[in-house]
Amino acid sequence: MKALTLWRDARLATFHGDQPWGAIEDGALLTRGEQIEWVGRLVDLPADVPAGLDIQREHSLQGAWVTPGLIDAHTHLVYGGQRAHEFELRLQGAGYEEIARAGGGIRSTVAHTRAASEAELLASARHRLEALKAEGLTTVEIKSGYGLSREHEAKMLRVARRLSAHGVQVRTSYLGLHALPPEFEGPTGANVDAYVDACLDDLPALQAEGLVDAVDAFCETIGFTPAQVERLFQRAQQLGLPVKLHAEQLSDQGGSQLTARFGGLSADHLEWLSPEGVAAMAQAGTVAMLLPGAYHCLRETKLPPIAALRAAGVPMALSTDHNPGTSPLLSMLAVLQLACIHFRMTPEEALRGLTVNAARALGLKDRGQLVAGQRADFCVWGVDHPRELSYWLGGRPLINRIFGGAPDKELK
Amino acid sequence: MKALTLWRDARLATFHGDQPWGAIEDGALLTRGEQIEWVGRLVDLPADVPAGLDIQREHSLQGAWVTPGLIDAHTHLVYGGQRAHEFELRLQGAGYEEIARAGGGIRSTVAHTRAASEAELLASARHRLEALKAEGLTTVEIKSGYGLSREHEAKMLRVARRLSAHGVQVRTSYLGLHALPPEFEGPTGANVDAYVDACLDDLPALQAEGLVDAVDAFCETIGFTPAQVERLFQRAQQLGLPVKLHAEQLSDQGGSQLTARFGGLSADHLEWLSPEGVAAMAQAGTVAMLLPGAYHCLRETKLPPIAALRAAGVPMALSTDHNPGTSPLLSMLAVLQLACIHFRMTPEEALRGLTVNAARALGLKDRGQLVAGQRADFCVWGVDHPRELSYWLGGRPLINRIFGGAPDKELK
Ligand SMILES: [Zn+2]
Ligand SMILES: [Zn+2]
Repeated sequence: MKALTLWRDARLATFHGDQPWGAIEDGALLTRGEQIEWVGRLVDLPADVPAGLDIQREHSLQGAWVTPGLIDAHTHLVYGGQRAHEFELRLQGAGYEEIARAGGGIRSTVAHTRAASEAELLASARHRLEALKAEGLTTVEIKSGYGLSREHEAKMLRVARRLSAHGVQVRTSYLGLHALPPEFEGPTGANVDAYVDACLDDLPALQAEGLVDAVDAFCETIGFTPAQVERLFQRAQQLGLPVKLHAEQLSDQGGSQLTARFGGLSADHLEWLSPEGVAAMAQAGTVAMLLPGAYHCLRETKLPPIAALRAAGVPMALSTDHNPGTSPLLSMLAVLQLACIHFRMTPEEALRGLTVNAARALGLKDRGQLVAGQRADFCVWGVDHPRELSYWLGGRPLINRIFGGAPDKELK
Repeated sequence: MKALTLWRDARLATFHGDQPWGAIEDGALLTRGEQIEWVGRLVDLPADVPAGLDIQREHSLQGAWVTPGLIDAHTHLVYGGQRAHEFELRLQGAGYEEIARAGGGIRSTVAHTRAASEAELLASARHRLEALKAEGLTTVEIKSGYGLSREHEAKMLRVARRLSAHGVQVRTSYLGLHALPPEFEGPTGANVDAYVDACLDDLPALQAEGLVDAVDAFCETIGFTPAQVERLFQRAQQLGLPVKLHAEQLSDQGGSQLTARFGGLSADHLEWLSPEGVAAMAQAGTVAMLLPGAYHCLRETKLPPIAALRAAGVPMALSTDHNPGTSPLLSMLAVLQLACIHFRMTPEEALRGLTVNAARALGLKDRGQLVAGQRADFCVWGVDHPRELSYWLGGRPLINRIFGGAPDKELK
């Protein structure tokens, strides 16, 4: 049996129980291997923990705040190239056409991703992953969707899996229905259905390779129709895979109701979410995944219906939505700040969005809170209160990141 | 005579000459002590530099991009306390009154600043300074304005001066006319004039202590009137001190014309700047200091007239405006991103705003570009192009910061 480690002299934001932040002052954690064994006030340790337990290591966190490890539950972290040049062209006044001619847009990312080797994709994604880890990331969801063929989607998902060798846990989502690949373009809609057919065929094979934890799609006038998404969701359901959806970002397609109907994990973006969508999500327990980075970078003005989501008790999660086109965020903490500024979420709601509700958006019950039985993934922060994590923009408040019980930085 | 150091294998964004970014590929820098001796293409070195020069050290920058050291020319970096709690209360729906009752607002910062010792102010400001240095800061302007009495303003400015012992150059601005101190509050306007009188009296004494490089004020309906500011500017002029102004942030007070009339270094904020203000600034050579952090955090919708400033050839600078109330930014790079997203500045304009134009806003001719004769303050970035510094939000692209010829990180 692995040895017990005591982490003492901490202030805990557990996101468990009735207190704001689930706060415990004068707190402590007891971990064994990758798991939390006990959480509470240090004074309660003797009474709570059976006598004779062998605490082999003890670390003082010197009064620092501890939160659950941060979870980025919606990212497109694996891709070839980047699109800073397109970003610049746009700011120089170039229109959509001009950027397309200059090789911009998602097609450029698809081309670069297809052209890249697995090793190249791994190296660039890992560089980005390290930026997120430096701000407390311990679990990350990564989508495919820039390969748009079985071969290249599989390549992306293998890279995502390989990132789990670098101090994070990874969940993958198959996002074949992200965009139409160039070889399926055509004058009629039939070609789009043909691509959907191809994706339905690819899914079992990718699943059999162990590459798919969930299935996602982009439901939008410029993406795929609810009917096409439904066919994908049916296939996912047959295969026992959970679903989620890029829904109501630019218009109300009813994608959130569709997702709720399939008991989906999350509906994501949601700027145009209707009252019916809110109700459907509330009933199904589908998480509202809000993406303030894309909202910010696209200069959106239509806000997701935060008050309605709150009133209906729909759990709200947040994530970077890291992608090279609409949300090149490499900061977990910037997500908090943007959610507070743009969406008027409270600092506590925002941080719940990167912990307990993000875990829920991934269907993971073993993380996102500081509570016995969960993974020992947590962050130690040099702040006077966790609300500061939303207040400053920039700075480097992370003192230590503990992943599966193991700290990134040695402690005395 | 100090030894020469050659920095080779660099790509330079010099912000000098006619090329976009003042770019030089296959570039090199020659530095001697704190100064740049030569900048150019490595192949031109033998022809440009007199034979027999003794290059004692040589560093390869391995193809990385080099920019001038970043200059934050408008900050309120020295203060007591912080206002994350107020930030949270506001997001929880508290109004102005409630926050004032809870001890919020600038009065809370004044109270905390007055109560703090010089050592305490130094420690907290230094912590924030390190965050900015980690993103390339080499020169920082710091304002008083939370002391609001001779004693406490002097304390703030001494702390600002002391920060220059920590690897940056510091310029100070006296901002007595930032807010009305509690002891001058009263039912009529006469008390405000009495406070202005007191500031006019304090200024020569603070200058005599060597604490004042420039004079600033907050000209606004909720601040000080143009007439009050003019009295301050006249005193500054008598004392030979340059002026600058927080102008047209919330309304058009004609503060930029006033500043231009005094040959001011910069007018800052400028959301409500009029065409007349633009013309006056253009004629006087007054820099437009744009503050996207405050715009962002206050959720402003009125944009400064960027196109008009461009057309009139008014140099545009950027800065964090770091302050605990309206712009708690601890990131130079976030300033770039926010300027591009909110103000639609180009990445090149944005970076000029933190280098060459920021130097101009401080009246400093010896920095802000990579050119012979300037200070050897420069940054080495791990990016494919400097436009990326505006594109990503977050990440840690700074490879090295060279301050006065000395690198933060040892090179081989
Ligand atoms: Zn997405
Ligand atoms: Zn200011």
